[in-house]
Amino acid sequence: MRNINEHTITAAVLERMADCENPRLKEIMSALVRHMHDFAREVKLTEAEWAAGIEFLTATGQKCDGKRQEFILLSDTLGLSMLTVAMNHAKSAQATEATVFGPFHVQGAPRLPLGGDISGGAAGEPLFVRAVVRGRDGEPVADAEVDVWEADAEGFYDVQRTGLDRPQGRAVFRTDGEGRLWFRGVMPVAYPIPTDGPVGVMLRATKRHPWRPAHVHFMIQAPGYETLITHVFRDGDRYLDSDAVFGVRSSLIGDFASHPAGAGPDGSVLSTPFHTLNFDFVLEPAAVAG
Amino acid sequence: MRNINEHTITAAVLERMADCENPRLKEIMSALVRHMHDFAREVKLTEAEWAAGIEFLTATGQKCDGKRQEFILLSDTLGLSMLTVAMNHAKSAQATEATVFGPFHVQGAPRLPLGGDISGGAAGEPLFVRAVVRGRDGEPVADAEVDVWEADAEGFYDVQRTGLDRPQGRAVFRTDGEGRLWFRGVMPVAYPIPTDGPVGVMLRATKRHPWRPAHVHFMIQAPGYETLITHVFRDGDRYLDSDAVFGVRSSLIGDFASHPAGAGPDGSVLSTPFHTLNFDFVLEPAAVAG
Repeated sequence: MRNINEHTITAAVLERMADCENPRLKEIMSALVRHMHDFAREVKLTEAEWAAGIEFLTATGQKCDGKRQEFILLSDTLGLSMLTVAMNHAKSAQATEATVFGPFHVQGAPRLPLGGDISGGAAGEPLFVRAVVRGRDGEPVADAEVDVWEADAEGFYDVQRTGLDRPQGRAVFRTDGEGRLWFRGVMPVAYPIPTDGPVGVMLRATKRHPWRPAHVHFMIQAPGYETLITHVFRDGDRYLDSDAVFGVRSSLIGDFASHPAGAGPDGSVLSTPFHTLNFDFVLEPAAVAG
Repeated sequence: MRNINEHTITAAVLERMADCENPRLKEIMSALVRHMHDFAREVKLTEAEWAAGIEFLTATGQKCDGKRQEFILLSDTLGLSMLTVAMNHAKSAQATEATVFGPFHVQGAPRLPLGGDISGGAAGEPLFVRAVVRGRDGEPVADAEVDVWEADAEGFYDVQRTGLDRPQGRAVFRTDGEGRLWFRGVMPVAYPIPTDGPVGVMLRATKRHPWRPAHVHFMIQAPGYETLITHVFRDGDRYLDSDAVFGVRSSLIGDFASHPAGAGPDGSVLSTPFHTLNFDFVLEPAAVAG
């Protein structure tokens, strides 16, 4: 233990955790140490590179606040988020696929009645969404809690803007007795993830673009079902094949139909073109604990 | 690219960095992604565990400030720091071994003349250090800049204390024409690394102790030589075989001799017991670039 070298140090660190009483924590920490050491040995990390890594991680943590989660952004752009989602949702063919949660969800968004407008005044062409939430056997899921969030016509979520006096582009609904959900929002557009922090530095240094294809986020929770966290992507978007966070699935691409100004699906008369999206969600039954 | 799964996502992320023009950055980032994904797949990381990891890294970044570097502490306790040091200093048998830098170095410590007292009033039994800095062929290294730092008798570095109006336990010296260095400090004691942050949570959760054996830090820089970052550890310390940051080397254990109150080596009369350390450092010649 007094003469650890680059080859023996990994076993020494693992040995130090011998008394850990939580077997899962021990498994995770041991694997983390092994893979992290293997990484450093493989690239023969220099001390200057190590210091740059410490500085990058520190800056990433310090960029985080109540409205900004730079570590989620880092995980998303390095594919770790989508990998985790994919591993944990190898679903039956019928169920709706999951995708990344992203850094822009906010707890406690306004609860709106069905048909409500989530935009809160955000700019954008009107979008009318209709959906049905079902179980795998086709049964409607009544009273499911559906969290919806989206960026505005300039590609910003409300939490990225300063000076707003109320939430924009987010709400929580409950499905009706037949599992139905309908609401008004704005047409989503492609947007770059925030690049004014360490993740932006990383993307530029590796010559990667920061764009995500247009999408609306959904999180659907109901007793007896697995929680579904997903997006519906806008068909035809130029970034569907190069999403900066690797979140696209073919099955999650929706048809956002465009309509000229005139009568909207909610009976109102619209002075601008508008869009409609019909998309149904299928939930997995809750996993049995074990 | 629209249907990435847990097996194909790694190649997709690597492909996204295809245009990176810095070959070393590309190599490091590619290896990092591969090993990080391998880790997640091996343990089949759950989404709750992923979220706990994000929260841990965020808290680690947010614990850092001008005086606290929690990410270095994390790297130290997971053996990554010592692994990096070991890989980059596979030295000739004669040269003094390197060890971890640690999180407590401060740029711009007071410059003192040889013989000066680095304690700045810190509590502790007096320690008189004498050292000679030489090159590998035995030549004395004159005018080497030697940064020295240590904790006080309670095991705290000055940056861990609030309300101090001047540095304590740190200074910068220059060796004389014969490569000699001598100064007064305090006898180092074993101390726990700071456990009031995320690293403390990790150590407790894995049932690891936070203790480091008593030591004095040295950083020695001279033109024509490799910079040496090392410690001298106190012989007999109970933590020499279980240093929380894996930094001990047998060759770095020094004999801190104890003496009763009386005449000190600097001619002063000491009213308390005191200690002396003689330790010589041997620097590697600077590596030829390439």
